[in-house]
Amino acid sequence: MISTRVIRRNALLMSVAVTLGLSAFGVSAEDKSADHGSGPAAAYTPSLSTLGQLQVEIPGRKEGDPVMSPEEYLQANQIYFERCAGCHGVLRKGATGKPLTTDVTRANGYEYLRDFITYGSPAGMPNWGTSGELTEEQVDMMARYILLEPASPPEFGMAEMRKTWKVVVAPEDRPAKKMNDIDIDNLFSVTLRDSGQIALIDGKSYDIKAVIDTGYAVHISRISASGRYLFVIGRDALVNMIDLWMETPATVAQIKVGSEARSIETSKMKGWEDKYAIAGSYWPPQYVIMDGDTLEPLKIKSTRGMVYDDQSYHPEPRVAAIVASHYNPEFIVNVKETGKILLVDYSDIKNLKVTEIEAERFLHDGGFDSSKRYFLTAANARGKVVVIDTKEGKLTDILETGGQTPHPGRGANLTHPTYGPVWATSHLGDETVALIGTDPEGHPDNAWKVVQTLYGLGGGSLFVKSHPNSKHLYVDAPLNPDAEISGSIAVFNVDDLTQEEPEYKTLPIVQWADIADGQPRVVQGEFDQSGTEIWFSVWNAKDKESAIVIVDDKTLELKHVIKDPRLITPTGKFNVFNTRSDVY
Amino acid sequence: MISTRVIRRNALLMSVAVTLGLSAFGVSAEDKSADHGSGPAAAYTPSLSTLGQLQVEIPGRKEGDPVMSPEEYLQANQIYFERCAGCHGVLRKGATGKPLTTDVTRANGYEYLRDFITYGSPAGMPNWGTSGELTEEQVDMMARYILLEPASPPEFGMAEMRKTWKVVVAPEDRPAKKMNDIDIDNLFSVTLRDSGQIALIDGKSYDIKAVIDTGYAVHISRISASGRYLFVIGRDALVNMIDLWMETPATVAQIKVGSEARSIETSKMKGWEDKYAIAGSYWPPQYVIMDGDTLEPLKIKSTRGMVYDDQSYHPEPRVAAIVASHYNPEFIVNVKETGKILLVDYSDIKNLKVTEIEAERFLHDGGFDSSKRYFLTAANARGKVVVIDTKEGKLTDILETGGQTPHPGRGANLTHPTYGPVWATSHLGDETVALIGTDPEGHPDNAWKVVQTLYGLGGGSLFVKSHPNSKHLYVDAPLNPDAEISGSIAVFNVDDLTQEEPEYKTLPIVQWADIADGQPRVVQGEFDQSGTEIWFSVWNAKDKESAIVIVDDKTLELKHVIKDPRLITPTGKFNVFNTRSDVY
Repeated sequence: MISTRVIRRNALLMSVAVTLGLSAFGVSAEDKSADHGSGPAAAYTPSLSTLGQLQVEIPGRKEGDPVMSPEEYLQANQIYFERCAGCHGVLRKGATGKPLTTDVTRANGYEYLRDFITYGSPAGMPNWGTSGELTEEQVDMMARYILLEPASPPEFGMAEMRKTWKVVVAPEDRPAKKMNDIDIDNLFSVTLRDSGQIALIDGKSYDIKAVIDTGYAVHISRISASGRYLFVIGRDALVNMIDLWMETPATVAQIKVGSEARSIETSKMKGWEDKYAIAGSYWPPQYVIMDGDTLEPLKIKSTRGMVYDDQSYHPEPRVAAIVASHYNPEFIVNVKETGKILLVDYSDIKNLKVTEIEAERFLHDGGFDSSKRYFLTAANARGKVVVIDTKEGKLTDILETGGQTPHPGRGANLTHPTYGPVWATSHLGDETVALIGTDPEGHPDNAWKVVQTLYGLGGGSLFVKSHPNSKHLYVDAPLNPDAEISGSIAVFNVDDLTQEEPEYKTLPIVQWADIADGQPRVVQGEFDQSGTEIWFSVWNAKDKESAIVIVDDKTLELKHVIKDPRLITPTGKFNVFNTRSDVY
Repeated sequence: MISTRVIRRNALLMSVAVTLGLSAFGVSAEDKSADHGSGPAAAYTPSLSTLGQLQVEIPGRKEGDPVMSPEEYLQANQIYFERCAGCHGVLRKGATGKPLTTDVTRANGYEYLRDFITYGSPAGMPNWGTSGELTEEQVDMMARYILLEPASPPEFGMAEMRKTWKVVVAPEDRPAKKMNDIDIDNLFSVTLRDSGQIALIDGKSYDIKAVIDTGYAVHISRISASGRYLFVIGRDALVNMIDLWMETPATVAQIKVGSEARSIETSKMKGWEDKYAIAGSYWPPQYVIMDGDTLEPLKIKSTRGMVYDDQSYHPEPRVAAIVASHYNPEFIVNVKETGKILLVDYSDIKNLKVTEIEAERFLHDGGFDSSKRYFLTAANARGKVVVIDTKEGKLTDILETGGQTPHPGRGANLTHPTYGPVWATSHLGDETVALIGTDPEGHPDNAWKVVQTLYGLGGGSLFVKSHPNSKHLYVDAPLNPDAEISGSIAVFNVDDLTQEEPEYKTLPIVQWADIADGQPRVVQGEFDQSGTEIWFSVWNAKDKESAIVIVDDKTLELKHVIKDPRLITPTGKFNVFNTRSDVY
């Protein structure tokens, strides 16, 4: 099973993932392009700003545009931002869904668009017409709407949020103790991307304990500090709060926090456990602090402001990853376009204190080092990792990873035989894995430097994974155009890292899954609580069979395959204990 | 000279000041109107957002609109924001200058506008045409431009600021010691509103030591903690930094921080003296921290965000008063429309920490209590005063003043014979003066309550004034429509405050100034350093004689009248010592 790497330094064209329509996990076209178009004024077209206004301005009207009445335009606009923007983006530039800019839509033409909206596609587009969710007239209207230039998206303030806020089961009506026999700390929350659901899967029996309706393409799951509540957020900015103590875990509260979102987190500081949740959105550019018991929205804060370096105004700085500090009552919020990391002090939200750290543009995802003191986060289009000291509340360092477009997810922590504690990230744009020293006290010479570069299966990697009890580093490559590569996982043995160019084992995960139909990709390893096995998603098209493949960490052999008709397009998986304790 | 009040509770129509075109000192139409129009979406018309863009969208085009080419529109737009917006407002709603919204301009018509721009008016409009500052073609273009709907104002980020930044005399070329015999601590900086200048007047000899060109209608003067540097800001957002050590004090650095502005301040915390300056602007809605030696712009922070109460997004929250804390390395920044008070920690501007205190909408001006620990600031259209504890960094209280539209300036501190330390504010909308207890330790029952209401000359008051060495409280009423009232000052004796309805003396300041022509108004008392005399501006039209009248605080008799052809439209006066030490 040992193979040597065949692709080295063969940087993928960044358009690959977009062409494939596979830009899951927050990987959108903008993330991967370099700085061009970063000028905020150029990217922003203020036009129809508020749905509630009577006056309608149809932006960018051109000769031959389809005719829409102002009433139709307003209705279509509302449908777009409620149903479509989560995947296709608020400015229709594409994300999970394909771009719907007018160069694309006009090339396809009205009939094509009408039929596509009506019947959907196996790649994940819902069949809005035949499902009955939109009437024939509405489908016709939406097809005409997307032939017009995109409108400016609507604001989503407290009034709009509160309209969407639902407490399904009030705190006093919830169980006073755990009512099921689930080993919650070893439960996995699995995103079922295209069905708009999550599955809760038992980490020992592999039984699906519940399938819960959520927002579309849930981006992440987070667990309250106590372990009781699970929070998930869809790309459509719908947040579900799930009570794991109920006989069958179910949603107890729900809220929509905007038109498009990626991040949610809960307060983890001692004394503040389960008190607050926070969600960040792409549109509007803001975050909201919510009550940890009910999701009641308490405080909204806009991220609009100046870019850290040239200090020009940016109207749309999106909120990317959010983590909760273990050292202070703070949320750590990545603001993408302005390149700022915010330390949001939640100890007094009426007198909200925010420290705004100048970092680097295009901040995206990241995680803690093994001590949980330092937050390492990728400035992906800049090829850099930014390090924040969450204890002191300051920038520690900014370093180049040496690879193209780092995408760490939360990263992976290893104890390197030569360099001590390191944190790993793979790259979207090439096959390298950077190991970065994270121990300024024990190994000061290596701290915040790339101490070693590994070479994985190929470009198009999204996630690396390890565990304190594991000797292995797992690297995926789901966005690689080669089916063999995108269907496999590379595993490095930590003991081999003393070698100059350590080799990896290749795990043929898709082959092990034994799926006849389609071209599934393997994505995102996630350990169980004990660190003895690792789960991978085998992610197929919506109408084809998918699976979860479980590997024994010691032997690197297949342990189990979970298949179930309900497992539609599984992607991210979150083990409750590892997620709430930031173990990765 | 003793008179009793003749007007009581006779609330002025708030339109008076606007009609008179006398809305100086930050009193604009919006401040005085109540909440209507506070909905941000309704007030904001996103349209042409960036001057630099080639694509031109002429907003709100109507039948019969004058024809402008895109090139003309861009040029006119630039002239408007550079030359006109400071007085007429970025959205043309009027402020110091009259409103130029299309209902007004179209009623007047093209010829009227062209001639007005060409010849100016005695009320303060410059003669742009006959002065040669605009060509005949430019005047024609501007007349057509203001017949069109207002464009969205341009951003003003770091690049724009740096283009306007000039160090006239570098720090190393400035004197190492004071080169003049001026008693700097008893110098007065006097705004010469319509000539775009300040006068520096010696507090003993009454000699004018210098007249310095500045921005238009300087709103305030502030002094660096050491007393060496004087900072002034015009409504056109031009900042001048003046070195008082030079043989003849002169501008050593200059910068434009936006299109329209009101506030400037310098760092006062021990250890940070003279290190930073900060300027807040109305447009763009932001503040900038600058180097205290050179005005180099270092950090710009947008104030766009959510309104404190309904948490809806506001695109244009203007920066009103700024003061510097004596207890922490912080600037205290009033954000008007969102009703937030920001504590901006300047100890580490790369990791900028800002505490955002939820306060009340329409925050405007304010000052410290006598201990300098508490900052009291008016939420003018809400009839309230907000109290901030600058030591603890928290909201202390919000109280109603009982009057209509409080306008404290920095307020006045007195030791009340019954209630101990109090802080006073007068009102724009009626003749009342509210005395608010400020001693939570010595007089806890009275703290942050209106302990007494005094009745002054009439509505239209802008400023109250006292001094630790004075037994008097002086109250002006320059915006009162009655010439006798607007030309007089009411003086209360602190010893009389034991009475239920203490009477005041009336000082006939304008009469004392002995000015034959025009209808001058008396405005803004300012004490000398020792607290033995108080200066009042007698503010006449631009082409008429004005004066400064100096009153002996002990006898309340006329001490001196300063007249000089250079004293054109004097308004605000700032004694160096009292200003830098927050003595008022």
